[in-house]
Parts: sequence; structure tokens; C-alpha cells
Amino acid sequence: MGEEIDARTVRVWGQRYSNWGRWGKDDQLGTLNFITPERVLGACALPRRGLVVSCALPFDSRGPQSGVGPRHNPIHTMLADGGDALAGAQNLPGGFNYADDAVTMPLQCGTQWDALAHVFYDGKMYNDRDVRLVTSRGARANSIDRIKDGVVGRGVLLDFPRMLRKPWLENGTRILPRDLDACAEAFGVTIESGDIVLVRTGMMTRCLAQDSWEGYCGGPAPGLSVHCARWIYEREVAAVATDTWGVEVIPNETADCFQPLHMISLRNTGLLLGEIFHLDPLSEACADDGCYAFLFTAPPLPITGAVGSPINPLAIK
Amino acid sequence: MGEEIDARTVRVWGQRYSNWGRWGKDDQLGTLNFITPERVLGACALPRRGLVVSCALPFDSRGPQSGVGPRHNPIHTMLADGGDALAGAQNLPGGFNYADDAVTMPLQCGTQWDALAHVFYDGKMYNDRDVRLVTSRGARANSIDRIKDGVVGRGVLLDFPRMLRKPWLENGTRILPRDLDACAEAFGVTIESGDIVLVRTGMMTRCLAQDSWEGYCGGPAPGLSVHCARWIYEREVAAVATDTWGVEVIPNETADCFQPLHMISLRNTGLLLGEIFHLDPLSEACADDGCYAFLFTAPPLPITGAVGSPINPLAIK
Amino acid sequence: MGEEIDARTVRVWGQRYSNWGRWGKDDQLGTLNFITPERVLGACALPRRGLVVSCALPFDSRGPQSGVGPRHNPIHTMLADGGDALAGAQNLPGGFNYADDAVTMPLQCGTQWDALAHVFYDGKMYNDRDVRLVTSRGARANSIDRIKDGVVGRGVLLDFPRMLRKPWLENGTRILPRDLDACAEAFGVTIESGDIVLVRTGMMTRCLAQDSWEGYCGGPAPGLSVHCARWIYEREVAAVATDTWGVEVIPNETADCFQPLHMISLRNTGLLLGEIFHLDPLSEACADDGCYAFLFTAPPLPITGAVGSPINPLAIK
Amino acid sequence: MGEEIDARTVRVWGQRYSNWGRWGKDDQLGTLNFITPERVLGACALPRRGLVVSCALPFDSRGPQSGVGPRHNPIHTMLADGGDALAGAQNLPGGFNYADDAVTMPLQCGTQWDALAHVFYDGKMYNDRDVRLVTSRGARANSIDRIKDGVVGRGVLLDFPRMLRKPWLENGTRILPRDLDACAEAFGVTIESGDIVLVRTGMMTRCLAQDSWEGYCGGPAPGLSVHCARWIYEREVAAVATDTWGVEVIPNETADCFQPLHMISLRNTGLLLGEIFHLDPLSEACADDGCYAFLFTAPPLPITGAVGSPINPLAIK
Repeated sequence: MGEEIDARTVRVWGQRYSNWGRWGKDDQLGTLNFITPERVLGACALPRRGLVVSCALPFDSRGPQSGVGPRHNPIHTMLADGGDALAGAQNLPGGFNYADDAVTMPLQCGTQWDALAHVFYDGKMYNDRDVRLVTSRGARANSIDRIKDGVVGRGVLLDFPRMLRKPWLENGTRILPRDLDACAEAFGVTIESGDIVLVRTGMMTRCLAQDSWEGYCGGPAPGLSVHCARWIYEREVAAVATDTWGVEVIPNETADCFQPLHMISLRNTGLLLGEIFHLDPLSEACADDGCYAFLFTAPPLPITGAVGSPINPLAIK
Repeated sequence: MGEEIDARTVRVWGQRYSNWGRWGKDDQLGTLNFITPERVLGACALPRRGLVVSCALPFDSRGPQSGVGPRHNPIHTMLADGGDALAGAQNLPGGFNYADDAVTMPLQCGTQWDALAHVFYDGKMYNDRDVRLVTSRGARANSIDRIKDGVVGRGVLLDFPRMLRKPWLENGTRILPRDLDACAEAFGVTIESGDIVLVRTGMMTRCLAQDSWEGYCGGPAPGLSVHCARWIYEREVAAVATDTWGVEVIPNETADCFQPLHMISLRNTGLLLGEIFHLDPLSEACADDGCYAFLFTAPPLPITGAVGSPINPLAIK
Repeated sequence: MGEEIDARTVRVWGQRYSNWGRWGKDDQLGTLNFITPERVLGACALPRRGLVVSCALPFDSRGPQSGVGPRHNPIHTMLADGGDALAGAQNLPGGFNYADDAVTMPLQCGTQWDALAHVFYDGKMYNDRDVRLVTSRGARANSIDRIKDGVVGRGVLLDFPRMLRKPWLENGTRILPRDLDACAEAFGVTIESGDIVLVRTGMMTRCLAQDSWEGYCGGPAPGLSVHCARWIYEREVAAVATDTWGVEVIPNETADCFQPLHMISLRNTGLLLGEIFHLDPLSEACADDGCYAFLFTAPPLPITGAVGSPINPLAIK
Repeated sequence: MGEEIDARTVRVWGQRYSNWGRWGKDDQLGTLNFITPERVLGACALPRRGLVVSCALPFDSRGPQSGVGPRHNPIHTMLADGGDALAGAQNLPGGFNYADDAVTMPLQCGTQWDALAHVFYDGKMYNDRDVRLVTSRGARANSIDRIKDGVVGRGVLLDFPRMLRKPWLENGTRILPRDLDACAEAFGVTIESGDIVLVRTGMMTRCLAQDSWEGYCGGPAPGLSVHCARWIYEREVAAVATDTWGVEVIPNETADCFQPLHMISLRNTGLLLGEIFHLDPLSEACADDGCYAFLFTAPPLPITGAVGSPINPLAIK
């Protein structure tokens, strides 16, 4: 990996690992196209225990956002509650009482999918679409609601801390393609076309253990190397998700370019990226049964024109 | 069904069809307990086509809320967009540009699950819990985040308009237990313990056809009779969801009591209720393959202390 | 007024009635510069009764927005309330109980000031500033917080319905410069440099009387003619506010141009515009004492980078 | 001041300094009743310079909230902006372009008035009203919109740091009635019935100087002693506002009672309390001209049922 990667390389690799046009010029699904009906059926055949494990962090005021940038933690407010009932303020017949509530939240403040409209450069987003399509009114293409009939497929957990017998990877640790292969092999799985690859770095484990999200969002982090762009493209991976803020290793390997893997894989490859996944319960479950491939489902909320969605990803083993 | 049902009957039936204590005094899952690991595995064995069908209405400003009561349609706002990129207002290195967004929404404004903390009476909610646990800070018990490792199971569609060869049921049409059985039989399915029963009335079909949500939220509607409380209890149904605002027939059968089935089934039986499901695409899919039972997954967002959650329910056939 | 006004005329008049550079290239106050310290003192000398009259419509869910466009009515939510106290959910020592609340609102959904960053054309806003300064992060110039040391001055009410002994002006009624002069004369006032001119059309009176805001926001309305641009410029008016949604007569006089007076007076003249003022109580008060000039104060909330602000304008008589 | 003050004393003093019924049982104005028309006129006669000085802190993400409790800093979002214009996403005729925005904010997150419904104890709020009137739907009495025809009167600045030639008072410094009198005397003013008393402690000066709001909200602070309750009552003060989070000295003098002055003065005396005022510019202006009494105006937003309001208080000198 001796070559220097820079903003120019990113554009070259972007072209090299591009799926623009591969599924037609109207395509808005990107790599989810790899999850064929056959692969959905194959995924459904995986469960052996009937165990369902959530990969979502609770959505609340305790994290992971810590006040940097425009993203804040979810704000949950009650529109009606038990106190109203006590105050006699609910006048529905028969003593019917109820609670009701609302939320104000950035769509990517917690466990989430990036839409294909989330990242772009040089005026274009996935499948040769102009960034002018993404305005204050939302994204007119590549938005999260375009993938509402998903995400269902075969999930694979690559559990680096467990493989390495460490509690977590240190910030700045970069995960190379060969590491991904080694981890898959260590746990007895092979990455197949259409797989949803969940990469556990342990960074969230550390934040929870230390009761601090300081630096989690946007700070130094372990994560995927930009070299994984080729691996993702060639393996025909449908989605990649991590227990970190931004999938990629930070500091990025490109001094002159922010989140280069997003630039290449999201914009050109059309890859679905998941972030802030809480993979510790799944890590335990996989260790228990030794089975690192499972049925995986994580439907986004089809918010019209949105560029991301909070999700509750479920692994079914 | 000659007997008169009133607020007193609701309390009697509430006791009769109660699951309080059935799964221990700490239980917060209610009827989801019927979905055993075996039943999850059974559900995973159902798909034959590898087809995934969303049952969510788009979350946006076009409906179904129409300005009555405190619930409004989702408000989607952009925190960053393509226009910022055009304006040169994003200064990340390498030309990295991005869009980001947020939502403000009542948790039950669209396709959603009710939490077991959503409805209560006489000072108590499911499993003998005091309504004082539900305050401006959220629900300290029976909240939606308690069921984050769900909902996955066997879904069954009871498609009344299709059975009756009508576009939709008229407002005020009440669906009795015998109707549920007849509909299941018509489509060749049997309701089993742990099933997630999706009832299509066609009301949403009508609103979409007429391009008007007037009256949809809280107005007259076709729906389940309060007599279904016994059927739900005895069949050990895990969840019931409809394409209407409130599951139940409106006007309610109880002149002196609002939404009596919620009072009995949600509070006493501990039933998971789903509302505002968009069942038309699933109706088409089931008609295509003749298969009315399927793997069903609808994970709620685990918003801490919330009394409901927007969802994107998926049927996997 | 025989000449045809079109989008081209708007640009010619924009140049003709421009105050760009008049108060220096760094100016962000626009016509508020006309309110000199002497004029503030003069305004303070006006009150005779010690009477304070609010010109704000209540901020709540009842109007004036009716679901068209991205602006909605204010959403008021409680973060703590008396019900929590009843539920014993507030644990502060000594029995201290409290209520707390929040609002989500478009800044121009009710009684409000437009900031000078609110309207622009041909890539520029007031004082030759580029529209690229107004992005998802807010306005970096001409924002509402720039005028936080205001608005205090001499207010003058031009009460058209009262002059004409009608309850309200019909939709489409256009108010010409000579009408403004006639109305001032009828009530014994003269418009002076630095005045804040409040124009009552009675449109809000009608909406309140008919209990309907249908069409109020953006629909046909009585209002100022585009010919008032010259009058505003020459009289050195500091601000103009009306009891309508958009100050101007709708349909606009320019078939090919939306809100031409905003384009000229806000962008070029640098005029502060106020909208959705509730002028009925003030109308009564002025009729009572025959005094149509008064001390006027309407401080905007200095929300950083905002392009408008909800206000509670006060007339002190 | 040798006597011990505790939760019981608070109730005794509450009764002693009560204005319940003083202005009738329907009164919702409290001490604002002291601002008679004569006093409004007297206040209007004070200005000598025509200078207007804002006492508001900017409303934005930079403070003063720092993530403790349910109050957060204002969230400002753009609904339309210059980037949309650049993207060609605004299709109004004649090239009319615009920006529009919204805010989500706790009403007491910045410079603000407390409504008389904000604090209560023993089941009652100001003027013998039941706390059951304050529910998730807002306050049905004593809400901020009840005082929409205000606040206008004579403001007096008591500038402690300037008197003491210190940059700020240390946390925990308690201000006694005799200190208030001494400060007034030092600056040549006398507190009169109906006055709006602005107390500068310098705490905000310190936070701004140190670029940190750590501890500002709810932490140790200089402020008024509970003994000021009598002084406020006897002097017939209309309002008290400070540059701190909660007016009172923290730690409170009552170990068994939180914010005792709020309990007595707000609930029993019916006092309008202002918090998080930015008094540094006013401090400079008063030092410049030696005049510590001025016309003061701070209209609340009349949000229906709200228990507080953000404000932009103006001193007119």
C-alpha cells in the first residue's frame, strides 16, 4: 500500500469502482441491487435459534452526540401523559386515558443509514445525478425513501476486538481489506455478493465503558481504510455498517480529503453505509453460538426526500 | 351479540382478558411473549419468493394528519444540502460535500406501533403499573424501547375488501370475530398463537384514491368490534395492525366509552397495536402469490421512554 | 399609473429606490438608520395615556397558517407541568414544583419582521451582498440579529377600514401612494422620516370574524401597490407593517413577478417589513383617543443568522 | 439575619408577602399591576439620549445551555435559502428568491421572562390557582400570553460589579436587601413602585470572558437572598431580572428548599422574574451617561398557554 492516496486518487478510484449505470440510469438502490430474491431467501434460511438481537443504540439525550456541529441528540417530548390523567385534563368518555409523544431529531444522530444523497462531490451524487436535486426541500433523488422495501438480507459480523482478544481497537487503527478477510476467516464466514457487513471496532464499547462520548462524533476513530473501496466493489457488498460515527479510520489516510471512502463507495459504488450501530449484544450472541452470519433486517423510515434515517437493525439468528 | 356494551363491561372484560402477571410482574413485552423462538424460526421458513414489501405510508407533509389535535405531519428540515455546496459553504477538504437533515414528528403521526404505555384507565396501565410512571419525562415502564428486540414473527393479512370484492369497507363497518375467522379461511390461513394480524379495511385505499385525509384521523371508520377482545385473547395474537387511524370501528360500539378495544386489549391483554399501515402493496403481493402468511418484521425505534414509534413494517414473502 | 409594470421595471425601480451604500458598505440596518436618536426621543414624547397595546396575534395552533407550504403554526410542548407535580415526578427539595416548555415554529409563521436577508434576486440581497451568504447555516449578513437594538420609534396607524367605514378592504384592493397620504390626512398625521407605518386593511379582522384563515397566507389579499416603493423611499419610512400575510396586494400587479414591492423595497431600499400584525386593538385605541401616532417598540429575538423573527409589537399611547 | 430559613419559613413568608386577591380573584398580571398608566408615562419621560440598548444574549447554539436537563440551546434551521436559489429550486416568477427559517427552542433557554405559571408548590400557583390547570396542553391560567400588553415601564440597573469595582461577583455571593439599597444609592436612583429592577452580578460577563457556560445553568451563582422577598413585596417592584440563570444565590440559603425566592415572590407575590439578561452593554451605557433609570420594554411572545417566553429586552435612554 505504498502509494500516496490523495483527492485526485479518490476521483480515479471513484471512476474505477463506479456502479453508475450498472442497474440503469434510473436506479436509486445502488448496491442493494445485489440482494436478489434468491439472496433474501438464502438469508431467511440462516436462523437456527429464533433469537432476535437489536443493533440500535437507545435514541435519547444521553448520546452519542456531544454538542459538536448541527447534530444533537433526540429531543423527546410528551404531548399527553399520565399527569394529565391525574389532573383530570383528559375528557374522553369512559375514563379512557392516554399518553402521546413527539421527537425532534437529526436523522443521523444515532443508529442510522446514509441515503445515497448524503455525500457527493464535483457537483454529482450517485448515478450521475446533480447536487441541485438536494435542496432545502429535501432530495428529489437518491433519498432514503427510495429503499423503503429494504433492508433485508444476509448479515455478517466481523468482530475485530473479539478476534484480537482486545476490548476495542485504538483510535486511528485502520482496517485493510486483508484484515476484513482475516476476520471473516477467523469466524468461519465468507463474504458473498449482497452481504451486509457489520464491522465491530469496539469504539462504542469503549465509550459506554468510559461513560463518555467525547470525541466519538467526528474525532479520531478506528475504521475502514480507503483501500476497502476496491474490496467492497469487488465483493459486491450490499451494505457496510460499523459501531463508529463514520465507518472510516480517522484521521483519514488522505490529508487533503475528508472521508474518502464515503466519496468513493457511497457516491460511485452506490454503497449503503450504516453508522453508530450498537454491536455489543450481537457480538455476545455470535460468540455464544459461533455463527457469524444471520438474517438481517433494518428498514429505514421512508421520510420523503430524507438523506438518512434512524433505524433499529435486527439480527435474527 | 345482543348484550349492551358500556364502560362497566369494558372493565369486566378487561379483567377477563387480562394477561397481567402471566409472564411475571416485571414483564413489559405483553403479547409479544407469544412469539417464541420456535415461532420466529417458523416465520423465517415462510418466504418463497424473496420479495420484500413495505407496509409504511411515506412520512411527509401530505398526510395522514390534517390538523386536528396535537398530532401533525412530520416536519422534515435540511441541515445541509446541495445548495450549500453550490454556495461554497462547505469547507471540508478534497471537495467532500454532504447533505444532512432532521425531523420533528409526533411518534404516532404515521405508520406506527403503540407502546403498552400509550393507553390506560383507572390509574393503571399494563401489568398493574401506575400511570404516575408516565410523565413529561416519558414512560418509565411499558415504553416502546422495551420491545426493541422485535418485532419479528409470522404475519397474516386479512384482506377484507379483496374478500368482499369491494374497494373498501364503509365507515362504521364493524369487524366481528366471526368475520376475522371467515376472512382467514377465505385466504387459506389459520390464526396461530404469536401471529401478527394485519387487517386491511381499505380505508387508506379510499383516502389515497380520493386524495383526501379528511376524517381519517379520529373520524368515522371501519374497524374491529370490541368483541374482538376475546378473540385476540384466546387466539394468543401477538399484534394487530390496520390501515386505519385507530384499529377500532368508529363510532365506537360503546356510547359511554372511547376506543374500548384499546382499553381492554392494550391495557389488560398487553396487545401490541399497529396503526396507519399502508397495506395496499401487500394486498397486491398476496393476491399475486395466494400466500397470506409471511415473515414479518417491524422494529420500533428504541426512543427511551417513548409511548409509540414510527415504523417501516416489512413483509417478506 | 398607466405604465405597465413588469419584472424589468422592478429592476429599474430597484436601482432608482436603492439605499445600497447610503450608510456605508457595512450597513445591515437599512431604513432603520432613519430612526435617529432625536426621532427616538421624539417618539418617547408622544404617549399621553400610558396605555400599552399589543399588535401580536396569539402564537398557537389556531392560525394563521393553514397547511400550505413549509410554514406551520407554532407547536408548543410542555417539558414539565402540574401533572408531573401531581405524579410526584419532581423531586426538588421543599416541594418546589415547576412547569417548563418549548416551541417549534417557523420564524415567520405569525406576527413578525422580515430580515433584510429574507428576499433577494439576481444573486444579491440588500447592500450588494451575495446570496451565497445565506445557506443552511443561516444568513451571515443582513440577518435579524443585526437589528437587535431596535425597533423603537414613532408608529403611525393608517386605518383604511375605519376611514372608509367598512369592516375590511376586499381582496385585491390595491393601496396607492395617494391612498396612504389621504389616510394619514384623514387621521391628522403626517408621515415623517423614520416613521414605522402600520397599515390596517381589515383582512385579519375578516378572518377572525369568519373564524377561517383559508387563503390568508399567500392567497388574494388587499395590500400595498408596487407604486408605494417610491413613496416609501422618498418619505424615508423606516418600516411598514400590515395585518396581512405579505404586505402587498395579491394578485400582484406584475403578472411576471412575485411580490415586486418586496423585491424593490426590502432588497434595494433596505426596508423593514412587518406582517401578520393584529391591528384591531390598536384601531380601537386610536379611535378612542383620536391619536394615530405613538411610541412603538417591537424588538426581534436576536436569533443568530435568522431571516425573520416572531415579535410582539407594542404601541404606547 | 440570624434566623434559620427553611421550607416552613418559605410558606410563612409566602403568606406574609402574598398579593393573592389584591387585584381581584381573576388577576393574572401580578406585580405588573404596579405599572400604572402614570408610571408608563413617567418612564417614557426618562430618555435623554435616544439610545436603545438590547439586554438579550444571542439565541443560538453557543450557549448558555450546556446539556444539563431538558433545556437545550435554540436549534435554528433553514426552510429556504440562497443555496436553493443557486440550485434553481425556487420557481417564483420574476426571479423572486427568498430565505425562510424555523426554530426549536425551550422557552426559557435564553433571555426570558418566567410566567406566573412557571413555579408552584403545595398544589397551587399564583392567585390561588390549582396546578391542575397546567398540563401537557399548556397553562390555562397565569400563562405568559396574559401579559402580552407589556412589559413597559421604568427600568433601573443595579450594577454590583461596577459599584464594587470588580469584574464580577463570586459564585455563592448573596445579595441582601441592604445591598440592593446601597447599590441604588451609589448610582443615584431610588426604587419606586412599579420599577423593573435589573440586577447585574457579572456572572455572564465571566462566562463570556472565559468562553465557558459550564455551571451557568443551575450551578453555584451569585444572586438574590431569600430575604429580598420582603424588600420586593414592600417596594412594590414590578419585575426583577438578572444576568444569571435563576435570579437567586446558589447554593440556596435553604438547605431543604430549592429556589425559595421563586417560591415566595413568583407564586405568592406574583412577581415577574427575568433571567439570563445580558446586561453588559447596558452597564457600559449607564456608566457613560451616569443615568441608571430608563424606559424599559420587553414584550413576551404571546404563545398561548406558555409558562415563559424568550425576549429581547430594550433599555431606552
